[in-house]
Amino acid sequence: MAKMIHSMIRVLEEARSVEFYSKAFGLSVADRVDFDTFTLIYMSNAETGFELELTVNKGRTEAYDLGNAYGHLAVSVEEVAVERARLLKLGFKPGELVELNRDGKLFGLFFFISDPDGYKIEVLQRHGRFL
Amino acid sequence: MAKMIHSMIRVLEEARSVEFYSKAFGLSVADRVDFDTFTLIYMSNAETGFELELTVNKGRTEAYDLGNAYGHLAVSVEEVAVERARLLKLGFKPGELVELNRDGKLFGLFFFISDPDGYKIEVLQRHGRFL
Repeated sequence: MAKMIHSMIRVLEEARSVEFYSKAFGLSVADRVDFDTFTLIYMSNAETGFELELTVNKGRTEAYDLGNAYGHLAVSVEEVAVERARLLKLGFKPGELVELNRDGKLFGLFFFISDPDGYKIEVLQRHGRFL
Repeated sequence: MAKMIHSMIRVLEEARSVEFYSKAFGLSVADRVDFDTFTLIYMSNAETGFELELTVNKGRTEAYDLGNAYGHLAVSVEEVAVERARLLKLGFKPGELVELNRDGKLFGLFFFISDPDGYKIEVLQRHGRFL
């Protein structure tokens, strides 16, 4: 059966992306694979086998067009408010904490944060569907 | 530590997307959560806890702009050639099988296929980094 193993995004600058995903979400570089015209960087942590694949196309300087179709990568954390405070302290700019209810019950407690290229990451409290 | 739990994409038609991800990758609907203006559909299978989150914005008919930033969701399969043949037989249109080598060794054996909204999915042979 097909197994979801990674999500690929194109980024402009390797170092700033690696720093962001490392500091913000504890991902580290599991592999870095260099080709003539591009480099692939695989980032992951011990929480899951799923990886974030960063593609750096060499010589590219123009910002990528994010469109309006792709939404976000979501991560879950134990304490979303603590995590948001930690990110603020590090100088990042997380959005406001949002509580989404459904039928009078908490569905999701989360905030969004953008990576250096503008991709949105949803940071969710570990709760309900989001474990 | 932050755990990657899902990837969200906006899709126009729930039924055709669910059918595609079900037939093509054996994902089934783990949850369907309806709100006033949008519906969230979570798809997964037994291979991993990671989920694909489909967002259907009610009343939207205009195709989403895919941009050129977001790349793809990748899945691994036991036998990529067999999988490709199966998809062809089902009437889908997988791309050609590509062998990517590095330092004389196989790095990845894969093909791409597009979902009904045009999102690319990379289907990789379970090998090397792609397990």
